[in-house]
Amino acid sequence: MKCVHLQVVSDEVVERVDAARNRALLLNSAAALIAERGVDCVSIDAVAAKAGVGKGTVFRRFGSRSGLMHALLNRFEEELQEGFLFGPAPLGPGAPPSERIVAFGVARLEFIRDHGDILREAESSVGTRYASSYSVYVMHVAMLLRQAQVHGDYRLLADSLLASLDASLVLYQKRDLQIPLIRIVENWRTFVLHLTSE
Amino acid sequence: MKCVHLQVVSDEVVERVDAARNRALLLNSAAALIAERGVDCVSIDAVAAKAGVGKGTVFRRFGSRSGLMHALLNRFEEELQEGFLFGPAPLGPGAPPSERIVAFGVARLEFIRDHGDILREAESSVGTRYASSYSVYVMHVAMLLRQAQVHGDYRLLADSLLASLDASLVLYQKRDLQIPLIRIVENWRTFVLHLTSE
Repeated sequence: MKCVHLQVVSDEVVERVDAARNRALLLNSAAALIAERGVDCVSIDAVAAKAGVGKGTVFRRFGSRSGLMHALLNRFEEELQEGFLFGPAPLGPGAPPSERIVAFGVARLEFIRDHGDILREAESSVGTRYASSYSVYVMHVAMLLRQAQVHGDYRLLADSLLASLDASLVLYQKRDLQIPLIRIVENWRTFVLHLTSE
Repeated sequence: MKCVHLQVVSDEVVERVDAARNRALLLNSAAALIAERGVDCVSIDAVAAKAGVGKGTVFRRFGSRSGLMHALLNRFEEELQEGFLFGPAPLGPGAPPSERIVAFGVARLEFIRDHGDILREAESSVGTRYASSYSVYVMHVAMLLRQAQVHGDYRLLADSLLASLDASLVLYQKRDLQIPLIRIVENWRTFVLHLTSE
């Protein structure tokens, strides 16, 4: 009986390790294809072929193309969060709060440059636009505004600052208005320093 | 010949007056129904019935339900523009620039309170989000930032300020977070004064 039980656990462990490896493989394949062709030209079929698995495996792991895109975005978001929560200053702890807000925005703008189309797909649905990662950003920026002793309503000031980093807005500035990223970064810096300086 | 020509003009004039009257009647009917039931429950059929015309007339004038909503939004936007371009201070000319920016945002927040659902329908499509009325707002706010002698890139600072008045964001704050409009207005005031004061 004990033996059978152990056998079951062992099978489950193997299965979980396989699932995690499959998941990572599929996400890497999707990321590589998006970098190569742009998000609009990446199908589930192409991701499955690139990863060397069946189409059914992709659907089993992610439910849909949209589920795959969300999983991919989450992985990128986790890397960004890792950076501002635990990484080196000025993005991570150790720098003055206003510099950390500037560094956060710069990281976010680079994130939009690199993953803009996936983000826009996600933000176009209001339900996901203010999803879990947005709440983490609000908490982070609100905490830094408090540390910087900015006068005001930290929660709403954080919303107002983050609105300026909205993917649709930044992509509109970059693509429609042809404004170079460096000018958008410079504006973010000015904007934050106006808000945080006495 | 002259007489026939005059007759044609006269018919055209009558037709144009009729068209304008019909258009206004349909927009008023749509506005009344939306105020009564909410935008999601207003169909073309209901608007036609309320205005006492056939469904075909609505489609001829506006092309689709979405065309009708855009026409309605445009009418409301024109009223707002009228207010900040030519109306009394502090929204219109005559007040210090920072007060005019504050008044503009307050008017816009009240606009979102009153027409939020129609706006969200329009903003959900990126193509219309940064459409003609957005450009007018950017020009207005950029001009006031220049007058206030704020240091920075007026065009992009205007985008950053206006992002805080995005309909999706404000509706998320009001509905999902249950934040009262007065607190959102107060945050806007603080935000603008941080930016415009030396």
